[in-house]
Amino acid sequence: MKYTEELTVPFFLGTQTGTLSLANMANIMLLVSEHQLDKVDAGIAGLAKHGAGWVITQYHIDVTRMPKIDEHLIAGTEATSYNKLMTYREYWLEDDAGQRLVTMRGAWVMMDLEKRKIIPIIPEFAEKVGASFDSKVERFPRLPKQGDFDLTVPYRVRYFDIDGNGHVNNAHYMEWMEDVLGEQFLLTHRLVEADIKYAREVAYGTTVDSAVRSEGDASYHLIATDGVANAEAKLRWAAK
Amino acid sequence: MKYTEELTVPFFLGTQTGTLSLANMANIMLLVSEHQLDKVDAGIAGLAKHGAGWVITQYHIDVTRMPKIDEHLIAGTEATSYNKLMTYREYWLEDDAGQRLVTMRGAWVMMDLEKRKIIPIIPEFAEKVGASFDSKVERFPRLPKQGDFDLTVPYRVRYFDIDGNGHVNNAHYMEWMEDVLGEQFLLTHRLVEADIKYAREVAYGTTVDSAVRSEGDASYHLIATDGVANAEAKLRWAAK
Repeated sequence: MKYTEELTVPFFLGTQTGTLSLANMANIMLLVSEHQLDKVDAGIAGLAKHGAGWVITQYHIDVTRMPKIDEHLIAGTEATSYNKLMTYREYWLEDDAGQRLVTMRGAWVMMDLEKRKIIPIIPEFAEKVGASFDSKVERFPRLPKQGDFDLTVPYRVRYFDIDGNGHVNNAHYMEWMEDVLGEQFLLTHRLVEADIKYAREVAYGTTVDSAVRSEGDASYHLIATDGVANAEAKLRWAAK
Repeated sequence: MKYTEELTVPFFLGTQTGTLSLANMANIMLLVSEHQLDKVDAGIAGLAKHGAGWVITQYHIDVTRMPKIDEHLIAGTEATSYNKLMTYREYWLEDDAGQRLVTMRGAWVMMDLEKRKIIPIIPEFAEKVGASFDSKVERFPRLPKQGDFDLTVPYRVRYFDIDGNGHVNNAHYMEWMEDVLGEQFLLTHRLVEADIKYAREVAYGTTVDSAVRSEGDASYHLIATDGVANAEAKLRWAAK
């Protein structure tokens, strides 16, 4: 069941180059999917009644071009399928001419909020938004084993990084990953593809290390707290 | 000339307590006023044709209660008056019942973008949105002289702090000011009033010091780079 909303990109979600940031692109996608889920009581509030929550495990993102500040967009999403442990969802942004700008695919699991443990998908919640059961586990691109990094920068978790779940909003991981590349790189390159794998939540009061290694047209990233991975990623870039 | 827009607070502009953050409240106010200015070609793009830009010098903010995540709001703004060097603008947020939640008042000056110097207000741009000339200079609450601070925390300016002007978006100063108060304080207090005075832009690649002194129900703040003030503020709090 596809669901779409229209929106205009506000200046404060953009970067100095006038385009939507990766982190805020993800925020918009999640906002729209949460609206779809809320309409059938399968969102954060609906699931919480069952003591459960959605947890993202991996994103694959393709960027044709990032939307511009003040650009009018159609944001869409669809929960495509689910199996015993995962649900898959697609997200996209299109311009007014119907051109696809960004496509994102996410693999979600369900968590017991009290035990903080992964539980089997409650079929009712996947089916409420029209996802169909398919026992096949979808393959996301495999992230290469982490090697030596070129640079590691510490990021102190701040009060406003924390969201309603009491942990860092995942989108901030994307900012920490990109920020280490530095202004000069970010001003002269544009992101074309991203694979991001989430491992562990980040709590208030901690400092994470954002490590990066560049190789060819890609950058490889690790976000870790005291040496334990919170997230890793491969980002692919093109010169502007 | 009053101008209003409706909006719903997206989750990613909220804090862990489920309310809009001060910084994002300011972002929303500026978005709405920029929309009003753009309609008569007096916004960033319109002014830039004359080599000029708007620069905020001071805000006074009264908060009855901060809007909640997912709350539907009416955001309003009005450029009230201008004199030789300043224009004054009001901003407000109301809930669906017409209850005023936040009122903000701002004093703006005009800058020559090339010389980076304050210039007299170009009357045409103030009048385009219905502001009337009034030679009276409005008084904003005076901020007390800075004393000794209880705590100073450094904040490294990050790539995504920078906006289209090539400097830190002013709203981030608010985050740096509040963040030093710490989670425990912020979870147990709500902001009721704020006076924020802007002195100097913050550039990429710098580290600012956010200093705070608490006294009674107020906190006094200084954001400085190498000992030179970027902004100062008095925030007033109530226990939750």
